[in-house]
Amino acid sequence: MVKINGLIAATFATFHVDGSLNLDGIPPLVDKLVDDGLKGVFICGTNGEGPNLTVEERMAVAEAYVASTKGRLLVLVHVGHTSIAECRKLAAHAEKIGADAISAVAAFYFKPANVVNLVDSMAQIAAAAPDTPFYYYHIPALTGVGMDMVEFLRLGEEKIPNLAGIKYTAATIHEYQACLNFKAGKFDVLFGYDELLLPALAVGANGAVGSTYNFAAPLYLRVMELFKAGHLHEAQQLQLLLVNMIREMVKFSPIPAQKAIMEMTGMDLGPSRLPLVSLSEQDKKLLQTRLEAIGFFDVLKQIKPVNDRV
Amino acid sequence: MVKINGLIAATFATFHVDGSLNLDGIPPLVDKLVDDGLKGVFICGTNGEGPNLTVEERMAVAEAYVASTKGRLLVLVHVGHTSIAECRKLAAHAEKIGADAISAVAAFYFKPANVVNLVDSMAQIAAAAPDTPFYYYHIPALTGVGMDMVEFLRLGEEKIPNLAGIKYTAATIHEYQACLNFKAGKFDVLFGYDELLLPALAVGANGAVGSTYNFAAPLYLRVMELFKAGHLHEAQQLQLLLVNMIREMVKFSPIPAQKAIMEMTGMDLGPSRLPLVSLSEQDKKLLQTRLEAIGFFDVLKQIKPVNDRV
Amino acid sequence: MVKINGLIAATFATFHVDGSLNLDGIPPLVDKLVDDGLKGVFICGTNGEGPNLTVEERMAVAEAYVASTKGRLLVLVHVGHTSIAECRKLAAHAEKIGADAISAVAAFYFKPANVVNLVDSMAQIAAAAPDTPFYYYHIPALTGVGMDMVEFLRLGEEKIPNLAGIKYTAATIHEYQACLNFKAGKFDVLFGYDELLLPALAVGANGAVGSTYNFAAPLYLRVMELFKAGHLHEAQQLQLLLVNMIREMVKFSPIPAQKAIMEMTGMDLGPSRLPLVSLSEQDKKLLQTRLEAIGFFDVLKQIKPVNDRV
Amino acid sequence: MVKINGLIAATFATFHVDGSLNLDGIPPLVDKLVDDGLKGVFICGTNGEGPNLTVEERMAVAEAYVASTKGRLLVLVHVGHTSIAECRKLAAHAEKIGADAISAVAAFYFKPANVVNLVDSMAQIAAAAPDTPFYYYHIPALTGVGMDMVEFLRLGEEKIPNLAGIKYTAATIHEYQACLNFKAGKFDVLFGYDELLLPALAVGANGAVGSTYNFAAPLYLRVMELFKAGHLHEAQQLQLLLVNMIREMVKFSPIPAQKAIMEMTGMDLGPSRLPLVSLSEQDKKLLQTRLEAIGFFDVLKQIKPVNDRV
Repeated sequence: MVKINGLIAATFATFHVDGSLNLDGIPPLVDKLVDDGLKGVFICGTNGEGPNLTVEERMAVAEAYVASTKGRLLVLVHVGHTSIAECRKLAAHAEKIGADAISAVAAFYFKPANVVNLVDSMAQIAAAAPDTPFYYYHIPALTGVGMDMVEFLRLGEEKIPNLAGIKYTAATIHEYQACLNFKAGKFDVLFGYDELLLPALAVGANGAVGSTYNFAAPLYLRVMELFKAGHLHEAQQLQLLLVNMIREMVKFSPIPAQKAIMEMTGMDLGPSRLPLVSLSEQDKKLLQTRLEAIGFFDVLKQIKPVNDRV
Repeated sequence: MVKINGLIAATFATFHVDGSLNLDGIPPLVDKLVDDGLKGVFICGTNGEGPNLTVEERMAVAEAYVASTKGRLLVLVHVGHTSIAECRKLAAHAEKIGADAISAVAAFYFKPANVVNLVDSMAQIAAAAPDTPFYYYHIPALTGVGMDMVEFLRLGEEKIPNLAGIKYTAATIHEYQACLNFKAGKFDVLFGYDELLLPALAVGANGAVGSTYNFAAPLYLRVMELFKAGHLHEAQQLQLLLVNMIREMVKFSPIPAQKAIMEMTGMDLGPSRLPLVSLSEQDKKLLQTRLEAIGFFDVLKQIKPVNDRV
Repeated sequence: MVKINGLIAATFATFHVDGSLNLDGIPPLVDKLVDDGLKGVFICGTNGEGPNLTVEERMAVAEAYVASTKGRLLVLVHVGHTSIAECRKLAAHAEKIGADAISAVAAFYFKPANVVNLVDSMAQIAAAAPDTPFYYYHIPALTGVGMDMVEFLRLGEEKIPNLAGIKYTAATIHEYQACLNFKAGKFDVLFGYDELLLPALAVGANGAVGSTYNFAAPLYLRVMELFKAGHLHEAQQLQLLLVNMIREMVKFSPIPAQKAIMEMTGMDLGPSRLPLVSLSEQDKKLLQTRLEAIGFFDVLKQIKPVNDRV
Repeated sequence: MVKINGLIAATFATFHVDGSLNLDGIPPLVDKLVDDGLKGVFICGTNGEGPNLTVEERMAVAEAYVASTKGRLLVLVHVGHTSIAECRKLAAHAEKIGADAISAVAAFYFKPANVVNLVDSMAQIAAAAPDTPFYYYHIPALTGVGMDMVEFLRLGEEKIPNLAGIKYTAATIHEYQACLNFKAGKFDVLFGYDELLLPALAVGANGAVGSTYNFAAPLYLRVMELFKAGHLHEAQQLQLLLVNMIREMVKFSPIPAQKAIMEMTGMDLGPSRLPLVSLSEQDKKLLQTRLEAIGFFDVLKQIKPVNDRV
């Protein structure tokens, strides 16, 4: 199975001011991500407000991304939902339109009782797109489902023929390392916690999916370059800036705060949908001032985007 | 606003063996509930596996219930979903087909940050069925959203014109009592924790919604009769039996366990959908043996169903 | 085994302004509690800041209470601690000075892994005061230990010869009811959630331990009288006032807020120890204004203390 | 302020078979740790069952460690307790006997309400040993207290004159990195999550405190050597073995399981105290078999202990 090297942006949903979907916002975002050196997009996930969209809207967003990327970026479609029946519709649709992979969180209203139950549930979803690689999306902080991921791979290997790996969004890098090394690295385990990218590199991460890669990918790519070249101190200093940027961002509601940062860097993606609330103009200014104070925008300007650094 | 007296059954979804929806299972269930003295049904909620169904299936279930009840029971349609846009479709549909009320849980992937945010979200949903009473469905153990419900009523009163009340599913009867008495009892606060029905009566509960009312309503109605007639000791003894029944039931997965009890009492509703797993035959026998041991079925046979006891 | 009827006040620790123990504060507090109709005191527990005291201070407090009550009130000594060795010292001391009962929370740094482990731990403590009744103190919200209490009684009956019952501080009144009825009411299960006293009465509560009984016992005793006399509506209205009082109180740090209310009613018990922080003068005024607004002090003045109403 | 480079073992309490303290177990353990290349010991902490000991026992253990180390190892004494008054006694004693540093967890029965409250509490403890460096012991998984540690340093810098740093036991390496870099590295932030040592090195960790360093220090020291020498792949492979060892260990109760591993490597430290339960002989064999299966003991034999590798 092919593994993903480099960075995948967990992209945003783009809305009109009235909260309706704005599919015209997708092509310019895609172009920017291509220019910034991303390898792919992860769509309709947490950052993409997938849970805030209708099934029809999720399909429309997926089509727009596939159409816009034109093969320049991998398209990973998140199809997770409380209803496996809806997941299967989304999965089949993603396969039909040529998505490169699908992914799903665990059910999160009725939560799986154990790893077997989780694998059985994911197997039903993955079977609806049998020719498309499937990544389980592990994000216990949001789903409340925190199973042992090595056990997931062990059981999933048997029951999910198209299992490609895991999108691993948790701080437990030791378990991530164990997953990376499961059966000599059989599966593709994408790291999903941006502020921990450098320590994840130290245990062998090659691919990562994250929301702040939408606007700061060149910096993270530089961290990867510096680490691989043995310039550890420089890598640490740059990662520290990114940690501090995220520390400022999460003092606000994270997804709207990131949309605000996108706006600061020249790309207005529209508001968020309830229960998410866009930042007030005052909060936007406050966030901007704080990011300026730590020098984030200055460094962002200095480090040039690349098409293929990694 | 009219208040509901008596018991509402949080009914089940009925499936074929292959997991597809079996709408033919609904009319006999409705007839049984009418015979058992219920006042209404709460459909597509937790017990009704609403989160396991597609939007289209939820609409089909709602239509089947409205058609089957023929005015003999109130029909409360749960329209909660992670996506408010989907909620609004379900709400508008429920109003169109003549549902008596709608209800929604808080969004549970992106959780509301505070009461204002929760009320604003519920207001968007309720506005899609403006002529239908709206009940907020408070169930913090499943949604992880545990806001102050008195504050919810205070803010909801202003922002949700069709706010009828709350389906209150939590053990915090003191807060429930405060809600019941908000503005001299302006709102209808339905109690949703079956094993606590008797103590809830003591603080003034008149209406209750629950899953075990599907098969044990005559016993609960007798508890209510006994309590109102001042026969406290007998009420306690009967409620204790119900507490013990539920204690046995929740040693298994609660929704499938209740479907198993329905089957024991003569009504096969089919399996559950993943991540819920039907009880094995062995577990069904174990549960049956334990319920027999505490005398549950004996008492169930002794206490006759009523059409209108309360 | 003798059971406790009526109310037990979970009393406070009394400090000098500099934070040192003020044993002279105990006799007047005891006299007030006798006058207010209490049946006993529960000392060095949560409200008594037991975990904030040294072992020597806890022993000194216990001696002061035994000396002050002179048999007018039962003295239940909380001996819970992370270290069972310390618990045993406290338990042996309590027995030596003639305490009426001892009680302990579960260990809360290393938490018991299951009910067997919990019972084994409590058995070691109880064995250090073999001639003194032992109450397990169930307070999962603070200890994070939420075992099945019926199972605790089942196993505890075998392994703890002096097991008297449970101080049950949780909102799960159904489990409380099951405990009350375990083996036909063999054990004394004291209810510990003041704002739920009325609903607990409905399932059979006779004895209760609580912190607000320090200053509002006459009102709670009246609730009990009214309920027993069949005046349900009046009981509900008075309980509602108490619920509202507690709702105001818990908007502040609960233990210091209750010390502030004690001060408002004429008894200054001194500050609390860190990490608890006494209310600022401004917060005291705010709390007083809010309690006045709901009429709490007026009702408190109207309902006369009694020596033996129950 | 001097910073600690290298590894600190969070040592065990040593008991007789009857559960009484066995101070004779300490000198041979200390000698082994010196031989294994440790820089210090952290005593009476989580792994040292501090919360299971009386205050007098904690003092006796501290004295035994100071006497045994004879300057060969730094001695960090954990003085955390629910009661700040007890903490202060332990802190003053530690200073008197010449401990190199003291440390305390947050109060964990009454939990601090915010960072200011936490810092004020720690300041009272640290002030009782004013000439001894103080490390705050951050372990949210056990205390339930998860404040922002950068804020802790910011406020602690002002209010705790002898603040040396933090023993940081959490997987959030990004926050750890931010702490390391607070004011250009002013404080000593010791990393406390053994299975994450390699990723922590990547963000700049120099010193670490951990429980598995009691028996596997030579392997961790080799990880540090390999990482510093640029042999990343070898460091990853060795860290992976340690991750897998810990994954097996935590399938049992962690502290007793580690005592069992100590026994397997030739050092019997006696049982644990309730609520901790020593592994059964069967479980010891199972654990040994699993550790043998992953090759843990083989590698442990191959990699020689060192006195001063780092």
